[in-house]
Amino acid sequence: MEYWQKDIETMSRKDLEKLQLERLKKTIELAGNSPFYSKVFKENGITADSIQSLDDLQKIPFTTKDDLRNNYPYGMAAIPIKDCVRIHSSSGTTGNPTVVLHSAKDLDQWANQVARCMYMVGIRDTDVFQNTSGYGMFTGGLGFQYGAEKLGCLTVPAAAGNTKRQIKFITDFGTTCLHIIPSYATRLAEVMYEIGLDPRRDTKLHTVCIGAEPHSEEQRRRIEQLLGVKAYNCFGMSEMNGPGVAFECTEQNGLHIWEDNVIVEIVDPVTLQPVKEGEVGEMVLTTINREAMPLFRYRTRDLTCFLPGDCPCGRTHRRLARFKGRSDDMIILKGVNLFPIQIEKILMQFKELGSNYLITIETVGNNDEMLIEVELSDLFTDDYSVLQRLAKDVTRQLKDELLLTPHLKLVAKGSLPVQEGKAVRVKDLRKLC
Amino acid sequence: MEYWQKDIETMSRKDLEKLQLERLKKTIELAGNSPFYSKVFKENGITADSIQSLDDLQKIPFTTKDDLRNNYPYGMAAIPIKDCVRIHSSSGTTGNPTVVLHSAKDLDQWANQVARCMYMVGIRDTDVFQNTSGYGMFTGGLGFQYGAEKLGCLTVPAAAGNTKRQIKFITDFGTTCLHIIPSYATRLAEVMYEIGLDPRRDTKLHTVCIGAEPHSEEQRRRIEQLLGVKAYNCFGMSEMNGPGVAFECTEQNGLHIWEDNVIVEIVDPVTLQPVKEGEVGEMVLTTINREAMPLFRYRTRDLTCFLPGDCPCGRTHRRLARFKGRSDDMIILKGVNLFPIQIEKILMQFKELGSNYLITIETVGNNDEMLIEVELSDLFTDDYSVLQRLAKDVTRQLKDELLLTPHLKLVAKGSLPVQEGKAVRVKDLRKLC
Repeated sequence: MEYWQKDIETMSRKDLEKLQLERLKKTIELAGNSPFYSKVFKENGITADSIQSLDDLQKIPFTTKDDLRNNYPYGMAAIPIKDCVRIHSSSGTTGNPTVVLHSAKDLDQWANQVARCMYMVGIRDTDVFQNTSGYGMFTGGLGFQYGAEKLGCLTVPAAAGNTKRQIKFITDFGTTCLHIIPSYATRLAEVMYEIGLDPRRDTKLHTVCIGAEPHSEEQRRRIEQLLGVKAYNCFGMSEMNGPGVAFECTEQNGLHIWEDNVIVEIVDPVTLQPVKEGEVGEMVLTTINREAMPLFRYRTRDLTCFLPGDCPCGRTHRRLARFKGRSDDMIILKGVNLFPIQIEKILMQFKELGSNYLITIETVGNNDEMLIEVELSDLFTDDYSVLQRLAKDVTRQLKDELLLTPHLKLVAKGSLPVQEGKAVRVKDLRKLC
Repeated sequence: MEYWQKDIETMSRKDLEKLQLERLKKTIELAGNSPFYSKVFKENGITADSIQSLDDLQKIPFTTKDDLRNNYPYGMAAIPIKDCVRIHSSSGTTGNPTVVLHSAKDLDQWANQVARCMYMVGIRDTDVFQNTSGYGMFTGGLGFQYGAEKLGCLTVPAAAGNTKRQIKFITDFGTTCLHIIPSYATRLAEVMYEIGLDPRRDTKLHTVCIGAEPHSEEQRRRIEQLLGVKAYNCFGMSEMNGPGVAFECTEQNGLHIWEDNVIVEIVDPVTLQPVKEGEVGEMVLTTINREAMPLFRYRTRDLTCFLPGDCPCGRTHRRLARFKGRSDDMIILKGVNLFPIQIEKILMQFKELGSNYLITIETVGNNDEMLIEVELSDLFTDDYSVLQRLAKDVTRQLKDELLLTPHLKLVAKGSLPVQEGKAVRVKDLRKLC
């Protein structure tokens, strides 16, 4: 068993919690320099000395995305702007964007954390790593770039889009690892097969890091099978730097979250009280190893739970269950709460179905209805009776999972819009009145 | 007078040449490991010992873009691929792309060279630097990113396009410096004025690095005036890492080329013999501070000449004249050799003309003709007689510069295609038979 930083990754829980408390106190001291937190701390009587244990963290109020928006751009900075070396900004399609500031030390720490994740899934300095993320403001680009360079991979900064060119790079440069959005991974594989290239035979690919979109276990298996690789779920969010916040190990059973860098809470999104051990709730994170812009008890909106027990990989940092999606992604239909990923999970179990699907919710008369369109896979028949039986089987399974019955429409391969960036899977056309 | 690396930048010519010879010999030793150069050296009897002076460099044959293409992707590498951490690739629209490999040391050296350039034009760690280059494979993105971070600027990795968003970042983040393509700089300024923003009053911009396209002194002055900044010509090429190969100092009189990292020759593109002192020729570069992929006597196709005399800035690295364009860009029309930049130089002298223009060359009957379309500036009249007089004046000056008479067409502002990337200024529609 090999580790990037054995001492940190396999630290005893006791030592890890001691380290967390030390770093938390140091971060509180530092954050006193930020216009936003100096006020929050004053109002709540928070000082480094007032925090005697990790439980005392709960004395500090939550921080929300609105706090970031309201203090745009520099109101959360805990060090002088002159000492920051990079700013990342969300697209800010509605209202002010959110920004995250980084010092040189922050960037180095982030690169190290990404390198740790990549090393954990077996990526080494002998690998050729191609990054299909957008670069610039989107953190998946520079985040993985710096991490992979620190690890010593030969990096191919392909950036997003241009599938033919991605494939040319993969074959010409002998690419062994990819960072890729899951919906784009299946798209890439499909284009390879279309042009007569079998990635399992004609490329050196062995590992892909899939992130930036929630995806189901079934989609992972499909990507692994199509590309002939091991695929690992990587979780990131720009407020917590970007990629590398939590990452699967080779056990593929939950994502280790790096508790030397963040303190994790899982709370009920309504009561904001901690959930019981093993229950699903909203992940709340406190940065304890960041200087330019610390965040305390940041409400991520992401829903997950801790997995019980020790991981056979030997890492002591706790594991989170696969993310169900963001609380913002939840669809409430006829009083039922459901996530798009539940639908994907069912669809991906059928080899007769392709990887592209679209969920539309609309008001028909006085009812809200769900339509699921899914492409058939390449291999499949156009025998009507077979299709009818398939549709019936899929619908039954969807009903069991969702507790409501959607309209299912099987469509020909290639008839749904092709998704080259983050996939848009849900169209909500309901009348709001 | 301040320097990023005073000892190197102001080194005596004698010491600089001594350093060059040392580094050249070391690079020859290293390059013996590359499949391509080991063969070249063997065929020409080149060893580190056979090079006793800088003049001996001429024993080594030229390297051309075709050599890079023919040895795609890894045939030029002088170190094991495992020790490379990044690959940059040209778009390869025709034939194989060219690639450049970098070790971690190469990337650090490149970042240092870019930081040295930026520091030279007065950019400091207190500045907010926005990079409007494409990222990924295009070297203007990561090249400036790493350089500006090394310098300690707050970097805004805006990447290319989306003018409204660029402007939002400039105003919201207090951007003081830009890296920008010259044609896009005028476009950005025009959009600012259109939305009622005066960059001279409403932004903190003070310095822009303009590169990636040849441009005239007149276009620089226009950018300076529109944005209220100092604009510096920066020259780069992907084969020589990317940006930072040569850069103007605050004298704005020629581009210092960093002779601790490259040996410069200027040769007649036909005879390949050195040109006389001060004559224009093709720049030929030898890398002497790069390990993953050294290049000897690389024919850049870029046409320039050395400027005579010492630079008042105190730097001893020689200055190159503004690049006239690439030998590939040269237009031969009716037996006359001319460059698009000569036309731009004339157009930009007229405040009545805008910044967008298009040159079309086509065969009319048995003759090849040149049509120049140029947009009128915002301010200007639509009085026909005034326009007629203007057209006559511009045509006369063009004739004096080009030694032939083009057809000139003044068109309304906004009627030529908007250029957001590298501007396409010439359409050659001549019949080839």
